Amino acid sequence: MQNIKQYVEENKQRFLNELVELLKFPSISADPQYKNDVLKTAEFVAEKLKEAGADNVEVCPTAGYPIVYGEKIIDASKPTVLVYGHYDVQPADPLEVWKTSPFEPVIRDGKIFARGACDDKGQFYMHVKAFELMINSNSLPCNIKFMIEGEEEVGSSNLGVFVKENTERLKADVVLISDTSMISLENPSLETGLRGLSYLEVEVTGPNRDLHSGVYGGAVANPATILCQLIASLHDKNNHVTIPGFYDDVLSLTDDERASLNNAPYNEDEYKKDLGVDALWGEQGYSTIERTGIRPTLEVNGIWGGYIGEGAKTVLPSKASAKISMRLVPNQHSDRITELFTKHFNNIAPDYVKVNVKAHHGGEPVVTPTDSIAYKAAEKAIEEAFGKKPIPTRGGGSIPIVALFEEVLGIKTVLMGFGLDSDNLHSPNEKYDLANYYKGIETIPLFHKYYAELSL
Amino acid sequence: MQNIKQYVEENKQRFLNELVELLKFPSISADPQYKNDVLKTAEFVAEKLKEAGADNVEVCPTAGYPIVYGEKIIDASKPTVLVYGHYDVQPADPLEVWKTSPFEPVIRDGKIFARGACDDKGQFYMHVKAFELMINSNSLPCNIKFMIEGEEEVGSSNLGVFVKENTERLKADVVLISDTSMISLENPSLETGLRGLSYLEVEVTGPNRDLHSGVYGGAVANPATILCQLIASLHDKNNHVTIPGFYDDVLSLTDDERASLNNAPYNEDEYKKDLGVDALWGEQGYSTIERTGIRPTLEVNGIWGGYIGEGAKTVLPSKASAKISMRLVPNQHSDRITELFTKHFNNIAPDYVKVNVKAHHGGEPVVTPTDSIAYKAAEKAIEEAFGKKPIPTRGGGSIPIVALFEEVLGIKTVLMGFGLDSDNLHSPNEKYDLANYYKGIETIPLFHKYYAELSL
Repeated sequence: MQNIKQYVEENKQRFLNELVELLKFPSISADPQYKNDVLKTAEFVAEKLKEAGADNVEVCPTAGYPIVYGEKIIDASKPTVLVYGHYDVQPADPLEVWKTSPFEPVIRDGKIFARGACDDKGQFYMHVKAFELMINSNSLPCNIKFMIEGEEEVGSSNLGVFVKENTERLKADVVLISDTSMISLENPSLETGLRGLSYLEVEVTGPNRDLHSGVYGGAVANPATILCQLIASLHDKNNHVTIPGFYDDVLSLTDDERASLNNAPYNEDEYKKDLGVDALWGEQGYSTIERTGIRPTLEVNGIWGGYIGEGAKTVLPSKASAKISMRLVPNQHSDRITELFTKHFNNIAPDYVKVNVKAHHGGEPVVTPTDSIAYKAAEKAIEEAFGKKPIPTRGGGSIPIVALFEEVLGIKTVLMGFGLDSDNLHSPNEKYDLANYYKGIETIPLFHKYYAELSL
Repeated sequence: MQNIKQYVEENKQRFLNELVELLKFPSISADPQYKNDVLKTAEFVAEKLKEAGADNVEVCPTAGYPIVYGEKIIDASKPTVLVYGHYDVQPADPLEVWKTSPFEPVIRDGKIFARGACDDKGQFYMHVKAFELMINSNSLPCNIKFMIEGEEEVGSSNLGVFVKENTERLKADVVLISDTSMISLENPSLETGLRGLSYLEVEVTGPNRDLHSGVYGGAVANPATILCQLIASLHDKNNHVTIPGFYDDVLSLTDDERASLNNAPYNEDEYKKDLGVDALWGEQGYSTIERTGIRPTLEVNGIWGGYIGEGAKTVLPSKASAKISMRLVPNQHSDRITELFTKHFNNIAPDYVKVNVKAHHGGEPVVTPTDSIAYKAAEKAIEEAFGKKPIPTRGGGSIPIVALFEEVLGIKTVLMGFGLDSDNLHSPNEKYDLANYYKGIETIPLFHKYYAELSL
């Protein structure tokens, strides 16, 4: 541990400089105009993996953005850890809310602000640096493989094919991912589950053209009004989702499981204060921790229709649309929920409008076992680095790929995240605490050490 | 009549060329980036008024866009007609739906396509040309005054001040406006009423920043979802508006009045076919003609919130907004309705969001008497020009200024519109039938003739 701390201490500035370089790439996978930047980012990551000491580094082409692969095989008889991360980031808008430009990283009171700082550039890069540390200190205790993709924020649509076509190359004993958060440095935690996702786009069409709201208003269905009515009907007064069958496959936890889950540190006043809301909202009968961890949800991610420019336009729009996503929990299935939503939305559409439902992407929910060698190794590593045993939590986010690894590669995943919920993932002013960044680089070698030991 | 027909026939091409010139100005009053174009349009209108023979032509500055004034006083003892129109136009978006560019007028099968073709450039310009005709043929039978403004599409916010400050200059016996529509050339009609307007913008704020919909989804109110719920609640299942007191001042017509109103030619199948809808929507208990003529309505003119770009972004937005307008009928009052809406919207807002309601602009509903000299003159003029007596109808649109004239100048208005509901006012591919344009130029001198005669 001493050598690790020392190495990190001596290389802090360089670790930071390299992260800043990485964060300067606007690698927004959702927006085609950034295509070249995304591709450049992949090259940069490959370069850094080589520099750190990885072999067989390759920028593997896919139907979409490439996947960066690299490995270090020290002994075929030793266990192998597959490190997964993603170099693409969320769109940065609304830009006007950013205090500093999303792709010009700035450090303010110990935090680095930039899109992707935490999700996931700052987090996957800890693994590259921890790997460099283990190579340079001759302490790599197991085989390691890196797979860093560029389409996580748009549904990892091509990773599945890649994994299926490279099962041999990706052969490993466990997947290690740092793309989630912990409660705090004082209360380190390990996520033992993730929610799945079904993401759809709905379009409601009324008249075949925008109309004068005076000449036609009152006689023709307004698609914006109808879309609002349809969306409003998707939750009942207890904020349960009303889609028939939506909860059928939801795994309900035992009272003990719920109790231990609710043991995690949580202060409602601080939570509300941080979000600037006077009251919380959610499914009746569940705590905030449960609402974001073990219960499925339905959210409007975007809505638009009619005149949204400056001033006033008295128009009765022809169309109104919304992006809607549902977070899923075990044992819901993304395809099934997408199908239920589509069927229901078409069913409730009145005959004076036409609706069109388009499925974007999805992912399956996962639960990671807490009795596995890998989980225990992560637990020991965090305990040694943080001086405190991590609290098991359930993550509200989704990493669709985790279910895929289990299905295709037949291996489990450990979610060793070092971010914080307050890091503004997917929000303006995303940041990552440098303390977490360095702490992560210290913790990762310990994970490999204990994982190798416990595997004997 | 013969001389009129002949003059129009001989000058057709020039009348068209001048209209094309006028339509080329993108005089969008709602969008500040077109400021210079709007100002240039005012200069052009003034120029044309001078050329037609008007005296004391002036581009009168206001706090907003200028008002173009011009007059011809032939004999103080004769009646005076005040012609009102507007040279500003609606925004042109969505641009992608236009078959040809909105400000490059194109003629297709006898119709001229351009933003403002009918509303109101094509219509007010008929008066300029009819005036030229009367001057050149020495047949102007009464005094005439022109007041062409540039802020009608944004609520005529500065016209009120101008009218109040110029009551002497604007002194007249009647206001003549062509900014409405008739049923068809075969079924000429005269609008005997207009709806009023209350236009507002609402903003719903949830968390103080955009959030990751996985990390927070289910535990924090989503302002887009809540906005949908609030908007959905503004109509009941019979499509009545639910705002308390909304209908209190609505003047209900007698059965006879309703019957005669419903006598106007109306074919529901054609109506639906034109709009491309399978079914109509509206307040239960009323016909389409009543829903758009004598009943108040509430429409969403625009709605936006969250991520509306390409692809998918799993965000729980901080804010969602909508532009909402209500069409009013006698004896509702714009300020009162705006107040009722604001009060109600704040009342129904749940404590887990904040709402902000901003009033844009409004206008009062009007009814024009059918027993006045001016109405009879219009009736006779149309009967002579079209060979058919006009059917009295109620217009669904709003011309807030009409109520103002009555209040400040103490004079009534005649709504002699030559547009068609199918002219795509406020919609892409706005057009005006040249037959209506020329027919209007023929009809207007007859109005002045009969108005002068009947006033004796």
